[in-house]
Amino acid sequence: MEIPRLECIGFVRNSILSREQAPKNYDISDHQGTLEIDPGYLDALQCIQPGQTIVVLFWLHKADRSVRKVYPRGDRSRGLHGVFATRSPARPNPIAISELKVLQVEDNILHVSGFDVLDGTPVLDIKKKVS
Amino acid sequence: MEIPRLECIGFVRNSILSREQAPKNYDISDHQGTLEIDPGYLDALQCIQPGQTIVVLFWLHKADRSVRKVYPRGDRSRGLHGVFATRSPARPNPIAISELKVLQVEDNILHVSGFDVLDGTPVLDIKKKVS
Repeated sequence: MEIPRLECIGFVRNSILSREQAPKNYDISDHQGTLEIDPGYLDALQCIQPGQTIVVLFWLHKADRSVRKVYPRGDRSRGLHGVFATRSPARPNPIAISELKVLQVEDNILHVSGFDVLDGTPVLDIKKKVS
Repeated sequence: MEIPRLECIGFVRNSILSREQAPKNYDISDHQGTLEIDPGYLDALQCIQPGQTIVVLFWLHKADRSVRKVYPRGDRSRGLHGVFATRSPARPNPIAISELKVLQVEDNILHVSGFDVLDGTPVLDIKKKVS
């Protein structure tokens, strides 16, 4: 089956400029920044509130989509794992999931903390966290 | 920015044949079934083990991508919410996230429980759960 094309709904703005600067996962990150959502999606942001945790999907535009096995977190002692058994950014469809804390909402700009993705990363979706 | 095309890595096989039969979320579901992953991705499945919880991304092929506001869980008393403040399947990029329990692994077939998506739903990605 052919999957229809995705829409880029916005971009990440933060101070993470290289893979080396990026925390391994959102749960150990206190990096702050913004989600700059296209104003055309303003309606879809209604009711997102400061203090909430949101689940955000990103397109990891710098990831290698051809990789099938990796050493988890670069640790060779654990042996090669299939990418689907890891959180590696390298995978056939490099979509990342982060849980981010909403600090402030200014129209189409969400100020958040917990980033583990690079500045400039495209945003695909935002969801309420399952409570 | 144009997002490159996604690959369909496999399909859901379960007994959920209509929206009405689908649990509202994975956390309240005990529906069992399989993820039939394309054999071309067998390498990428290595090290997924029975007993693990995996995070699975699906393409909700029947979702309405034009919807921007919904009544959360159909409850009109709560008022209209932007789709990004909800878990509604209707959204610009209808990608669903489920956490599923792995029951058994047979080569490229993963037997799992916790389904909240329909039989025939395309699979996009599988990840380790953040511990």
